Amino acid sequence: MRCFVVVGQNATATGDFLLQDIPGTSGRLDIGLRCVRAALLLSHGVRRDAVVYLVLRGGPRAPRVLRISGARAHFIRPDERSLAVLARKVLAYDVGGAAREFVEVRAGVAVANGDLDRVIADVGAATLYVLEESGPDLRGAVGLEDAPSAFILGDHLGLDEATRARLGEVGARPLGVGPLSVHAEDAIAIALNELDRRDAQEKEGERLSP
Amino acid sequence: MRCFVVVGQNATATGDFLLQDIPGTSGRLDIGLRCVRAALLLSHGVRRDAVVYLVLRGGPRAPRVLRISGARAHFIRPDERSLAVLARKVLAYDVGGAAREFVEVRAGVAVANGDLDRVIADVGAATLYVLEESGPDLRGAVGLEDAPSAFILGDHLGLDEATRARLGEVGARPLGVGPLSVHAEDAIAIALNELDRRDAQEKEGERLSP
Repeated sequence: MRCFVVVGQNATATGDFLLQDIPGTSGRLDIGLRCVRAALLLSHGVRRDAVVYLVLRGGPRAPRVLRISGARAHFIRPDERSLAVLARKVLAYDVGGAAREFVEVRAGVAVANGDLDRVIADVGAATLYVLEESGPDLRGAVGLEDAPSAFILGDHLGLDEATRARLGEVGARPLGVGPLSVHAEDAIAIALNELDRRDAQEKEGERLSP
Repeated sequence: MRCFVVVGQNATATGDFLLQDIPGTSGRLDIGLRCVRAALLLSHGVRRDAVVYLVLRGGPRAPRVLRISGARAHFIRPDERSLAVLARKVLAYDVGGAAREFVEVRAGVAVANGDLDRVIADVGAATLYVLEESGPDLRGAVGLEDAPSAFILGDHLGLDEATRARLGEVGARPLGVGPLSVHAEDAIAIALNELDRRDAQEKEGERLSP
């Protein structure tokens, strides 16, 4: 399992935004939605071993987490508006103030109360990585291909100090994807490319030495 | 200069599509629009040395080419709807049936009559590459960092036989980005990451041996 966790500093935890102006009315939920596409979709299929978590810290119901699982999600479409419509429907669901677990509202799409710690609990034994510009190059990272793993990254506002501190406490390893600071969805595409290459090498190795 | 050329087999050459359903009404122009973001935008800035060409083969005015230049374009926003609004405005402009050159309709955003050959003429001496699944790995490509270069790729329908044949005639070199077939915008993100790394290495080399 490969998890991608996008922290939306102001991204709305309710379905209360306008489809005609997603960036301007959702606290930049559009960034998280584009990350869903990058993390889950291939040219003609879904990455069944991928899960995306959007940590939503904006609006009255925040913090909440939206979770989309490639293994169970149907009809994930690549365009931003379709993803926004899906998010809006699921976020409109009231999980109850006390609920502490993910509630699956649509097939493969769940919502929970809570912040990053809810995600950390949900990914269980996954190795944690933080994708950030200053981190050591992921191409040189030993064991990067080992699953389960979870890659945490910020939106256009980056990760705040408290989040960085918490990630440090739980042993998340910093990783950089390249020399320039790129959009979150591009960082995911680059990280998945490295993982795909390592998976392919491993399979090729198994084929050659049965 | 780094150019990215996305061939939209059915993508509309007119501004005649619905913002409420871009994928369903534009011949999948949404794919090209997402490629514009991937090719031109960094976290907090524009790639000034990048140009995107969308070859639009759908609808009554086809074929036409939309060209967006990072060096001159202002206010390029990352979300699909904003890019669609921009494309619609520019595509609504009638360049005249006989016009053979690009007409800049907005700062940095131009349109021309013509198909792939219009792009090939416009990129001049650029080295041509075709991004396709079966191509040799771009990480091993000698001289990939040399500019100007132009990377041609298909949309969800891929490149047709006639286009492939034409690209062969003009000496375009096939390149693969990884073991899986990924969305066009992810292929662009992966290619740019390799180029960014090589540019950074080159600068580092210059710094160490002045």
